[in-house]
Amino acid sequence: MVLREERVAVLDPVREQRIRDSIGRQTLLTTLGVEIAEVATGRVALDLPFRADLCQQNGYLHAGAVTTVADSACGYAALTQMPDDREVLTVEFKVNLVSPARGERFRAVGTVARSGRTLTVCSAEVTARDGSGEQRLVALMQATMMAVTAQ
Amino acid sequence: MVLREERVAVLDPVREQRIRDSIGRQTLLTTLGVEIAEVATGRVALDLPFRADLCQQNGYLHAGAVTTVADSACGYAALTQMPDDREVLTVEFKVNLVSPARGERFRAVGTVARSGRTLTVCSAEVTARDGSGEQRLVALMQATMMAVTAQ
Amino acid sequence: MVLREERVAVLDPVREQRIRDSIGRQTLLTTLGVEIAEVATGRVALDLPFRADLCQQNGYLHAGAVTTVADSACGYAALTQMPDDREVLTVEFKVNLVSPARGERFRAVGTVARSGRTLTVCSAEVTARDGSGEQRLVALMQATMMAVTAQ
Amino acid sequence: MVLREERVAVLDPVREQRIRDSIGRQTLLTTLGVEIAEVATGRVALDLPFRADLCQQNGYLHAGAVTTVADSACGYAALTQMPDDREVLTVEFKVNLVSPARGERFRAVGTVARSGRTLTVCSAEVTARDGSGEQRLVALMQATMMAVTAQ
Repeated sequence: MVLREERVAVLDPVREQRIRDSIGRQTLLTTLGVEIAEVATGRVALDLPFRADLCQQNGYLHAGAVTTVADSACGYAALTQMPDDREVLTVEFKVNLVSPARGERFRAVGTVARSGRTLTVCSAEVTARDGSGEQRLVALMQATMMAVTAQ
Repeated sequence: MVLREERVAVLDPVREQRIRDSIGRQTLLTTLGVEIAEVATGRVALDLPFRADLCQQNGYLHAGAVTTVADSACGYAALTQMPDDREVLTVEFKVNLVSPARGERFRAVGTVARSGRTLTVCSAEVTARDGSGEQRLVALMQATMMAVTAQ
Repeated sequence: MVLREERVAVLDPVREQRIRDSIGRQTLLTTLGVEIAEVATGRVALDLPFRADLCQQNGYLHAGAVTTVADSACGYAALTQMPDDREVLTVEFKVNLVSPARGERFRAVGTVARSGRTLTVCSAEVTARDGSGEQRLVALMQATMMAVTAQ
Repeated sequence: MVLREERVAVLDPVREQRIRDSIGRQTLLTTLGVEIAEVATGRVALDLPFRADLCQQNGYLHAGAVTTVADSACGYAALTQMPDDREVLTVEFKVNLVSPARGERFRAVGTVARSGRTLTVCSAEVTARDGSGEQRLVALMQATMMAVTAQ
């Protein structure tokens, strides 16, 4: 299918900086140790290195940490395509945890599936990488983001 | 509607301790500062006091933190009704963020809507409480949990 | 929890008629044989009598039929609380099919969990009734509806 | 991302016939006029020609009809990868309606994102085609399917 919006392109530097600044203000991302991997038009990738203090009861990354990076990746992917006077809020998302979140490093890639004036629909894939460099899909998100007037 | 399972009852102390121990092993909950408010049959409540390092870009609690407590509340609500040799894994969830997560303290109440041998469907409501004691709904979760053989 | 909006009240007759007329224009509901059971402020119930031509491969009601009545019940529940110059569109929904949709008659009750100026979050429960009058929960929906200017 | 399972391959003819027979037993699909467009390993496409008796209040295809074809496409995509003694049940799905379902013909393409022994996670895209042949994305589904012992 080629119908999802595929406008992955370099952002103008001013807008990219605005996105990076906003990501920097998400204190939960700092608390978890999230790093920005990519900011492009309609696509944002965030990395989360494994830490033993972010886990569920079996020592895997907690679904809440997986969701946090996926949500922020989707939200900022949406924001890259919104006018400069807008901010983004999460309306809702749905996450499937498709395999245990085991690994040394996790990457959430959020992409815009459809952008509208008010609502933007995004998808995210979260993958785990272990020491051997092998990647595995751990989660899929489908999310709705909303453009609101910046405060 | 009275058809959701409503078996909110006192758990036997051994099972309750097993649940509390498992919650205690979710290191992300400790990192976020989550406290256990209630563990009953088919119902678990978790509290998250506001902290400035758990926020999104506007200073509200991050959707990922909201989701973390809701997911754990749902998972442990499901576990209260599973046999003792089972553990619980999150299959998927969907969260609506219905108002900004502003407040001094957040409570996620997870309840079992329908328990099956393999899959259990849960709901959670997350509310915010401010200094005046007023409560406001901030999020609704609908989740699917899976019973797996304990490791 | 008492925080979901609970404004189930009699609608003024003009608005109720407007809702009923709009339901009447949903031709899929007529095709499936859906009947209006209740229209109240923030709450709409729709009934679907079982028919052998609405099934999945095992002779149970198809998830798509279950979803159709739940979606319309949610949408119209939302519309009861919107200004008269608005129409409602479904943004998204999530449905858990919690038990096989077996029975003689199905009822979807949609209720408003949170109404906003643009977006309204609704829940629906779909129950099955068999010949003995016993009711069983078959599906849970969590949905986001949007107010748009009527055409 | 290349991590979703991409095993779109020709099915062995016996299994393909078994899938087509099961689709043929979904009486709701016959009632709506759904046609099989493709059955391959991990991928099923179903077509729904527009009919005026399948609409919502504005004359667009009802979200319930969109969901019906997406759900069946996902379910049968999952079934193509299950052992021959299994059947598929829908556990849950989430659908975003990303633009009005306007058009002459709709196609739901369901693909397997991750298959497990018990649960399979699928995605579907529903597109509309108008008289000029132009395609537009109208809905995205993310679904969980379950393998059960055939009856």
